[in-house]
Amino acid sequence: MEKSVAKQFPRPKVSIYIASSIDGYIARKDGNLDWLHYGHTGDEDYGFKTFTSTIDAVVMGRNTYDVVAGFDEWAYKDKRVIVLSNTLPKVRKEAELFSGQLTELLAKLHAENIKHIWIDGGITVSRFLEAGLVDDITISIITMVLGSGIPLFSTMNREHNCRLISTQSYPSGLVQLKYEVLHNN
Amino acid sequence: MEKSVAKQFPRPKVSIYIASSIDGYIARKDGNLDWLHYGHTGDEDYGFKTFTSTIDAVVMGRNTYDVVAGFDEWAYKDKRVIVLSNTLPKVRKEAELFSGQLTELLAKLHAENIKHIWIDGGITVSRFLEAGLVDDITISIITMVLGSGIPLFSTMNREHNCRLISTQSYPSGLVQLKYEVLHNN
Repeated sequence: MEKSVAKQFPRPKVSIYIASSIDGYIARKDGNLDWLHYGHTGDEDYGFKTFTSTIDAVVMGRNTYDVVAGFDEWAYKDKRVIVLSNTLPKVRKEAELFSGQLTELLAKLHAENIKHIWIDGGITVSRFLEAGLVDDITISIITMVLGSGIPLFSTMNREHNCRLISTQSYPSGLVQLKYEVLHNN
Repeated sequence: MEKSVAKQFPRPKVSIYIASSIDGYIARKDGNLDWLHYGHTGDEDYGFKTFTSTIDAVVMGRNTYDVVAGFDEWAYKDKRVIVLSNTLPKVRKEAELFSGQLTELLAKLHAENIKHIWIDGGITVSRFLEAGLVDDITISIITMVLGSGIPLFSTMNREHNCRLISTQSYPSGLVQLKYEVLHNN
């Protein structure tokens, strides 16, 4: 296996933090997220605020941007938001476009004093994993088998050993798994 | 959504019990299962013997049969083993071939006093789920991102709400999630 490039240059810590159905989908085919709230009651946030308080920037793909840009309220106040796209002409004023290599992006963010980023969206997550540029993965598994949709993981030409950091279950049935991605292979 | 047929006729209880990588694969592309033991130490069996003591029969697809038939030791002593295939001419003497509808199989097994079956293999698991014929799902998640392989879940034209029964983590990092499949939708 190709040596990981993860530790070969100074870069921000890179975290995946995402919800998935039992069968590995992050959204219905049309991007619909209604099922995310299945079983949910009360104001439990599953550690989301604690997590977002640790990050300086969000990096997402064009598909995720299209979904979140349609929400009534912009969900990423006080955070830099970088949208990866080679084709979008522009993004809303709260966000930034980036179309280069991932290593280039991380070097740039490091130079701009960004210490920790959250990467969001199935294609983006898999691109970073394939590049060996992910440090930890938090998956919140919702108690649904969707049958079809947008997959969390795409096919990748790289495998990763991981270490289970923690697992937590909630009254809704949501189980949150947190892994460290090991860069020794 | 089509009404579940699950409770429309007397049939055995149907359980999925399977190991998966973090990215949802049950084997490498060639069927290789070497990664299953990643992180494993000692003689922990993750509840496998307890589970198999509750089942009367194993139902698997042809691909899973090809893998397990190649093992030095036949893994299913004292259990009926049914192999689903339309093309295999025969199977080893310890197993039985079946090529009809799943509902037909379950009615037949019920008539033969089979109370509880274990269904194994990605295609088989998804066929039973799509038919609304699964009662519970136990997934043991191994601390590996494989990148590619044989998927646990295929695309299905049916969704399922589930209920988390239990979650357990082991020193190896394996997390075992157990769900009841709800048949109210």
